[in-house]
Amino acid sequence: MTGGTLLTMASPAEIIEDPWIGIRDGKILFAEAAPLQPCPLPEAHEIIDATGHLIMPGLVNTHTHLPMVLFRGLADDLPLMSWLNDYIFPAEARYINRQTVHAGSVLAIAEMIQAGTTTFCDGYFFEDTIALAAMDSGMRGVVAQGFIDFPTPDQPDPSRKRENAERFIDRWRNRSPLITPALVCHSAYTCAPETLQTIKAVSRLTGTTFQIHLAETREEVALLQNRFGKKPVVHLRDLGLLDEMTVAAHCIWLDEDELDLLARHRVKVAHDPESNMKLGAGVAPVAQMLRMGIEVGLGTDGCASNNNLDLFGEMGMCARLQKVCSMDPTVLPAEKVLEMATIGGARVLGISSEIGSIVPGKWADIVLLAMNKPHLTPLYNPFSQVVYAASGADVATVLIGGKVVMRNRQLQTLDVEEAMANVRTIAASIQEKYSPSLN
Amino acid sequence: MTGGTLLTMASPAEIIEDPWIGIRDGKILFAEAAPLQPCPLPEAHEIIDATGHLIMPGLVNTHTHLPMVLFRGLADDLPLMSWLNDYIFPAEARYINRQTVHAGSVLAIAEMIQAGTTTFCDGYFFEDTIALAAMDSGMRGVVAQGFIDFPTPDQPDPSRKRENAERFIDRWRNRSPLITPALVCHSAYTCAPETLQTIKAVSRLTGTTFQIHLAETREEVALLQNRFGKKPVVHLRDLGLLDEMTVAAHCIWLDEDELDLLARHRVKVAHDPESNMKLGAGVAPVAQMLRMGIEVGLGTDGCASNNNLDLFGEMGMCARLQKVCSMDPTVLPAEKVLEMATIGGARVLGISSEIGSIVPGKWADIVLLAMNKPHLTPLYNPFSQVVYAASGADVATVLIGGKVVMRNRQLQTLDVEEAMANVRTIAASIQEKYSPSLN
Repeated sequence: MTGGTLLTMASPAEIIEDPWIGIRDGKILFAEAAPLQPCPLPEAHEIIDATGHLIMPGLVNTHTHLPMVLFRGLADDLPLMSWLNDYIFPAEARYINRQTVHAGSVLAIAEMIQAGTTTFCDGYFFEDTIALAAMDSGMRGVVAQGFIDFPTPDQPDPSRKRENAERFIDRWRNRSPLITPALVCHSAYTCAPETLQTIKAVSRLTGTTFQIHLAETREEVALLQNRFGKKPVVHLRDLGLLDEMTVAAHCIWLDEDELDLLARHRVKVAHDPESNMKLGAGVAPVAQMLRMGIEVGLGTDGCASNNNLDLFGEMGMCARLQKVCSMDPTVLPAEKVLEMATIGGARVLGISSEIGSIVPGKWADIVLLAMNKPHLTPLYNPFSQVVYAASGADVATVLIGGKVVMRNRQLQTLDVEEAMANVRTIAASIQEKYSPSLN
Repeated sequence: MTGGTLLTMASPAEIIEDPWIGIRDGKILFAEAAPLQPCPLPEAHEIIDATGHLIMPGLVNTHTHLPMVLFRGLADDLPLMSWLNDYIFPAEARYINRQTVHAGSVLAIAEMIQAGTTTFCDGYFFEDTIALAAMDSGMRGVVAQGFIDFPTPDQPDPSRKRENAERFIDRWRNRSPLITPALVCHSAYTCAPETLQTIKAVSRLTGTTFQIHLAETREEVALLQNRFGKKPVVHLRDLGLLDEMTVAAHCIWLDEDELDLLARHRVKVAHDPESNMKLGAGVAPVAQMLRMGIEVGLGTDGCASNNNLDLFGEMGMCARLQKVCSMDPTVLPAEKVLEMATIGGARVLGISSEIGSIVPGKWADIVLLAMNKPHLTPLYNPFSQVVYAASGADVATVLIGGKVVMRNRQLQTLDVEEAMANVRTIAASIQEKYSPSLN
């Protein structure tokens, strides 16, 4: 790859004009300034001309639920409990099966690649199916099989959690360099202490990440306080769940002591600003977390509460929301936000030795942004342009593991028309039953 | 125009599938469901096939400063005073002239059309030049000549305000159906009471809107309290500035009594959520304003504080920000937000009899969104899709006054490459002097 402007997102962040980037066996061989003296390019199977583009690591979505694209826009602007109980839970119970999960996942992968995301972390049911969809599409995923204390479409017998968890990890460990298996317990209010400890034990034994929704709403905090007489993080700490392989999503309603517990146990946080705002859940104290040394990545959450999978939107939202809530425009500068969406997200997911920055030895997960557009002109500061002016639609070309999965907006590894058609068919039957009449 | 799904944004909001829209002499002749019986299309010079598209009124940007695209990303993540005093004010003093204002305006118009904005309301210097750029590009604008109590590049003698204001209105009244002249005083802290009253008097005599920045920061409120012993709105009320032709931008730091004054005097509000957040200025009480019957439109503000002119972003931001700040996901539903960005914005600018909805007799300012994309699939609710999932990049085709100004993303009325090149040349000389080193 030649030309363009490279943001390596190595530490400290470098900006390299007109770089040469070499890729071999899917990994980055070199990424450096082109020689000052004109000299022939190294031999290559293919040379991508990145002139006029910003080159950066693929974005890392640390928290999402891919199949929920099926419910995008089904039920917005509703009270949280009506949204969940009258729309999302019934729709999931009735329409989530292996086939619909596959259809939703393929569409979500198409959307993510088009918006420059090269790694997602998903937590849902039928996670095998999601992993397969990712593998088939050349997409990188941390796929976390979901656990909850009631029967689900993929686990009608909730008593076999340990076995299901172990088997899931076994099936996916070392199966593909694209797939990293993981485990997710939905939350401390839908999973009993025993469930949480069982799944975390498997996670520890297998060296995989353990994920959980944490302190997303005030109701959740009140419920746990009521049930266990403890704040959420204290509850998890007392169950022995806090360590550097635990990833907690949302983390909105935490007090100083709880943040301190997260920091001391090196727990990772997945921050989902658009979903938190749209559901009226609250504002996570991200600026404070970062000051305390907590690693925070960005996530979109599922499309029932976002309603898209564009991490560019999350970057801009995260920066702006923290600034206005702290009344301080200097918090979360653009470069820090792009770090959260790339190498920071990789650290959250425990795979920062593999991805997250453009340095030799890592997988070549690379995004090219087309910069020759009115809304990206002029260009004083590439970090600022990415976070405050660009959108996923500016992504032109995407490589994952050195393979071009999108070239000039054309997806190379999946049939996008078929993916949309499949989801529309499923949506038609969902709408018939659940969607409020609009006319 | 045939096919697609039409959101008229008439009241009550209609959704018409497969509509027929007729346009004559730049205005909408009819917009209705196609006949049930197959019948030949009415004769037309051109028929646009909108199949697969959402058809909606062009968006109305009620508050911006077009030439500030020149400073996009020049100085982000800085304390407000350093941003203003060390970067923006010096850059304006040195680089704002008729030629740079023209270059910036043309680029901004290109960006706005590409993001589906068909009417902007601008307040800046050299407003004649901005009006000409709009006319030449087929863009609709409410152009407000700016006034402030110190010499500016376009008005070296601040004592001739009344004359300058009258002449500006005279020059532009009835000159083009695209251009509506207006007047703007920067603020109550940069304009003495006499200035405000002088300009408002011209506005009243000429039947044009009077615009002003109001209560954007806490510092401003303290300053006015200190100088005049009054809250900002009380100060304006006592000067006789409040009426239905006054448009106040920002309106963040207002108490209940001041909101009540705005409501009773039918003052209009231009809300700029992204700018307010990025500058750490604060959150305007929009949900409350709407409950009190205050008309609120959306604006992007200038690109030095946004950093783009995409009203789709403002719609999503406005909805999400009000929901999270009120902890209530039901406030500002998507349909209301799209109303604010279309017919509501037109009401704010006093031109809702001319534009803002797709009904017979209004100008044909129409936007076609291409919906056959992963992030817009499935489609349960078009309002929700527009506000929470779409972006300006989904706009395919734009008509202003019946004229196609963009067709399938290709701008028809201006040379976008030249516009970008001109701004890059200016930016290169700005960067040399003002931009912090990035390497």
